[in-house]
Amino acid sequence: MEKEISQAVIRRMPRYYRYLGELLEEGVERISSNDLSHRMMVTASQIRQDLNNFGGFGQQGYGYNVKYLYDEIGKILGLNETHNIIMIGAGNLGQAITNYVKFERFGFIITALFDVKPSLKGQTVRDIPIYMMDELDDYCKKNKVDIAALTLPKEKAEDTAQHLVNLGIRAIWNFAHVDLDLSDKSVVVENVHLSDSLMQLSYNIVKNSK
Amino acid sequence: MEKEISQAVIRRMPRYYRYLGELLEEGVERISSNDLSHRMMVTASQIRQDLNNFGGFGQQGYGYNVKYLYDEIGKILGLNETHNIIMIGAGNLGQAITNYVKFERFGFIITALFDVKPSLKGQTVRDIPIYMMDELDDYCKKNKVDIAALTLPKEKAEDTAQHLVNLGIRAIWNFAHVDLDLSDKSVVVENVHLSDSLMQLSYNIVKNSK
Repeated sequence: MEKEISQAVIRRMPRYYRYLGELLEEGVERISSNDLSHRMMVTASQIRQDLNNFGGFGQQGYGYNVKYLYDEIGKILGLNETHNIIMIGAGNLGQAITNYVKFERFGFIITALFDVKPSLKGQTVRDIPIYMMDELDDYCKKNKVDIAALTLPKEKAEDTAQHLVNLGIRAIWNFAHVDLDLSDKSVVVENVHLSDSLMQLSYNIVKNSK
Repeated sequence: MEKEISQAVIRRMPRYYRYLGELLEEGVERISSNDLSHRMMVTASQIRQDLNNFGGFGQQGYGYNVKYLYDEIGKILGLNETHNIIMIGAGNLGQAITNYVKFERFGFIITALFDVKPSLKGQTVRDIPIYMMDELDDYCKKNKVDIAALTLPKEKAEDTAQHLVNLGIRAIWNFAHVDLDLSDKSVVVENVHLSDSLMQLSYNIVKNSK
């Protein structure tokens, strides 16, 4: 049986991936856990502990091979596969995320946007078509969709998510201002709450000004 | 001396605030930690522990007064004060966040955007003016700025952040794809990495498909 890895560890993995990617860009081939720890501002023992969850990757005294570790963490994160994303909501946020081409480098491809606003019908964002919501069912039947991103009002988020699950979508990237609580717990949900992060910032401002 | 509260607790506070806000909208006046726990999908003891960091707020056997707890958590998060935000970068993401009026309800007011693209000069987003970057110093001298939000390429993020700190800005909400490492550690930084959240989603997709 596979060991359950905590979400706290998983949350740190993209950060490792990001830092290793920067090291690669700089042409660094090998790094000790101490140097990596200094750069990432976490303890070396934290790094060793985190990576041991996946079997280690380091050789005592030799540090980590950057390219190998980068690729292995990429595989752990599923970045060796392509994920098709549809964007539900083609307002500013939906269009902003669609324009963020950097995701494509990691295998996340936005294939279509959907909205209810008739004036958006037939328009495109970076050549990616905007469809009307009543075309969603048909689209999902004819195309492979791995992830639905929700950038729509919170009042519509729950029902729309449920509808997407009924259409066979197994993963939701939710920007609506609500924690999605789907009846099918095997559906993967990642909530991005921008206000939460702003409030955390605000807490630390108040704390620092004391 | 005030007790240092862990960032893990702080990260959960906006979520409490959000759920209590929903209860208020529904007209709920009082809630037990058990009911709140059920709704938020965390344990009741976690809730009691978290809130005890700030002195409790509950009466044994009587549960929590929703309005009171909502207001108190709002104060803890600094939401009883207004925070002026400038947006550095008026591309899609900068404009999307500026259009997200919901932040204003919590006292976060975007007062200006800045960009280097000459075609944006003199334009507005929701009547909020877009200025050119060479007007930044003057703007910061004449206006109260609490938070700078960065939606600009990662190559420019570090230098721009340092420049903002030199102008007296004490808090940075960073959307650039890099962890800001400022020399002045008293500056509050909150990094929002959208790719990280997408990678976490992808990890859970792979895990579930096994």
